[in-house]
Amino acid sequence: MKSPVNLDLGTIAYNIGEGALEIAGKHFTKFSKCFLLEDENTERYCLPVFKKALPNLKVHGIIRIQSGEVNKNIEQCIIVWEQLTKLKADRDSILINLGGGVISDIGGFVAATYKRGIHFVNIPTTLLGQIDAAIGGKTGVDFMGFKNQVGLFIDPMAVVVDPIFLKTLDDIFWQSGFAELMKYGLIMDRDLWAMLIHRNYKELDDEWNKLIMKAAKDKIDIVRFDNSEKGIRKILNFGHTIGHAIETFYLKKNDAITHGQAIAAGMICETWLSSQLSELEGSPQCEIWKLIDKNFDRLDITEENISELLHIMKQDKKIRKGKFRFSLLRRLGKAIHDVEVDDSLVIESLQFYIQKQNFS
Amino acid sequence: MKSPVNLDLGTIAYNIGEGALEIAGKHFTKFSKCFLLEDENTERYCLPVFKKALPNLKVHGIIRIQSGEVNKNIEQCIIVWEQLTKLKADRDSILINLGGGVISDIGGFVAATYKRGIHFVNIPTTLLGQIDAAIGGKTGVDFMGFKNQVGLFIDPMAVVVDPIFLKTLDDIFWQSGFAELMKYGLIMDRDLWAMLIHRNYKELDDEWNKLIMKAAKDKIDIVRFDNSEKGIRKILNFGHTIGHAIETFYLKKNDAITHGQAIAAGMICETWLSSQLSELEGSPQCEIWKLIDKNFDRLDITEENISELLHIMKQDKKIRKGKFRFSLLRRLGKAIHDVEVDDSLVIESLQFYIQKQNFS
Repeated sequence: MKSPVNLDLGTIAYNIGEGALEIAGKHFTKFSKCFLLEDENTERYCLPVFKKALPNLKVHGIIRIQSGEVNKNIEQCIIVWEQLTKLKADRDSILINLGGGVISDIGGFVAATYKRGIHFVNIPTTLLGQIDAAIGGKTGVDFMGFKNQVGLFIDPMAVVVDPIFLKTLDDIFWQSGFAELMKYGLIMDRDLWAMLIHRNYKELDDEWNKLIMKAAKDKIDIVRFDNSEKGIRKILNFGHTIGHAIETFYLKKNDAITHGQAIAAGMICETWLSSQLSELEGSPQCEIWKLIDKNFDRLDITEENISELLHIMKQDKKIRKGKFRFSLLRRLGKAIHDVEVDDSLVIESLQFYIQKQNFS
Repeated sequence: MKSPVNLDLGTIAYNIGEGALEIAGKHFTKFSKCFLLEDENTERYCLPVFKKALPNLKVHGIIRIQSGEVNKNIEQCIIVWEQLTKLKADRDSILINLGGGVISDIGGFVAATYKRGIHFVNIPTTLLGQIDAAIGGKTGVDFMGFKNQVGLFIDPMAVVVDPIFLKTLDDIFWQSGFAELMKYGLIMDRDLWAMLIHRNYKELDDEWNKLIMKAAKDKIDIVRFDNSEKGIRKILNFGHTIGHAIETFYLKKNDAITHGQAIAAGMICETWLSSQLSELEGSPQCEIWKLIDKNFDRLDITEENISELLHIMKQDKKIRKGKFRFSLLRRLGKAIHDVEVDDSLVIESLQFYIQKQNFS
């Protein structure tokens, strides 16, 4: 894609594609002061790219936090609130969130609550950020071992998805993003699924740009219709109810795995649940499991971990009146939401993951 | 007023008057779980009243924080988030904020951010809470010495203003509320002003109910038109730009004064500014100063404190591009907003407060 697409939808502007950063950057000068949030990785790899693309932008202050989900906590929010206060950010200021999901989650929450709200813009620099975290207004931090326990639905002024940042990424990030790409294919985009099937994330090379733009637009389509997750947006949670619990489980034992690794495992379990409760047939099931196993090693979860995983799951925000409500697949490219699932079936799905190793 | 008024305006229900609590309480049972936020004072004086009025309501957990503006901080928010997590509050839960401005400010912010938002209702138990803090969706906490530096505009599901709670109040709270009553009179309600003039807050007795309901409705009228403080709502800040700085100043030296005491001093200064910049004439000016001095002792601010007060004011959320913007009086019952004021005039207004003692 040569020129970026500017989807100016309602109050949020989406700038997507090559050159998006330069075009969006022209709007950053409208504010009284401009602040940038980064971590040690984006400082090293992305800030030079940002500065080169926008040489004339005056940045009044750069605020650095520590990278990684393990640092997505209220203490880091306090650091950012403190820095904004010290740097005398006023209500006409803008905060530019330059980084992955942790940066946009913390930066969005802090900007929305500093002086009861200043402007902010997300410039996702990771694959996951570009196709998921930076789009849709979910912000917040983990708390007491629970993911996103404290946060807000709040939209940025703009989301800038520019592939220029992806050149700096390690293999592990591509793998992590691949899990979310699969998810979009499975829940809503059969064309995307067809582009992924039988593939390994290491072999995609020149196709990535196209895949990312497709997934980013899928996400935008969903949140445009249901930003506050009252209905259709819930299908984005496919793989995430169990996946989040797994992610939290590893986080708690200080052995963090990537979001994609957790979601891949979650999708194996929830695909199994889909066959039990939502008419998903045997052949697409195997297709899904094979593609996941082709791209992800199995995690070392055992039978003994199941009760703890269930305990973590019970704290999920999607729990209503003590009942699990899952988003499941009806067929390839089509998901349904709010399927009530008993504890016993969730346990069985985890047992399936543990016992039926590797379909690839 | 014998039966409470139910102003069901848009998504927020206002229940105002005697018996309001009992009527509103019927709706609290709709939620999966019901939690109550209190401080040591409301536990002692208001919780028994609450329980007596709603004997059949099942409360799943009571969360207690420490009273006082000095405790309106992020650490107390963390305590409430922790308690909600431990008590397994889910997204269908409701948090009942039983108390004054500190309770509704903290409770609203925490409820709005716990699991990205649960329901909450404000039951103000102080005069200030009933006519101001609980209405209009301003929530948040003080941070690094600045008032409401971290917070949100977020509306409760309902506000219940029941005079039954006021029977428990000390004199100092009546005095504090009197300053805000005066403010409503001055900025928008000449009838209210006429009911207050030449009076002392200690002598009002049976008239309080009527005054409170009138002021609460004034506040509701304003926030209905401009909840996000883009325009007319700013007139509520009369007396508060300088008043907040004074409140912060005393808070910082661990010698807290009431909100009303600070605002009374702020109104003396800003009435003087109104005569300089907004055509307010001499005779109403003296009327205002006299009524304030009749009800409030002067504070021990000195010339030496002025630079620190100015420094605090520069961090005010209403500052835009480094310039002060005040809400000032045009005449009794009429205010204007966004009047640019130079530092030098603000200093003069404080000198006026210090030098021209007591008009009563």
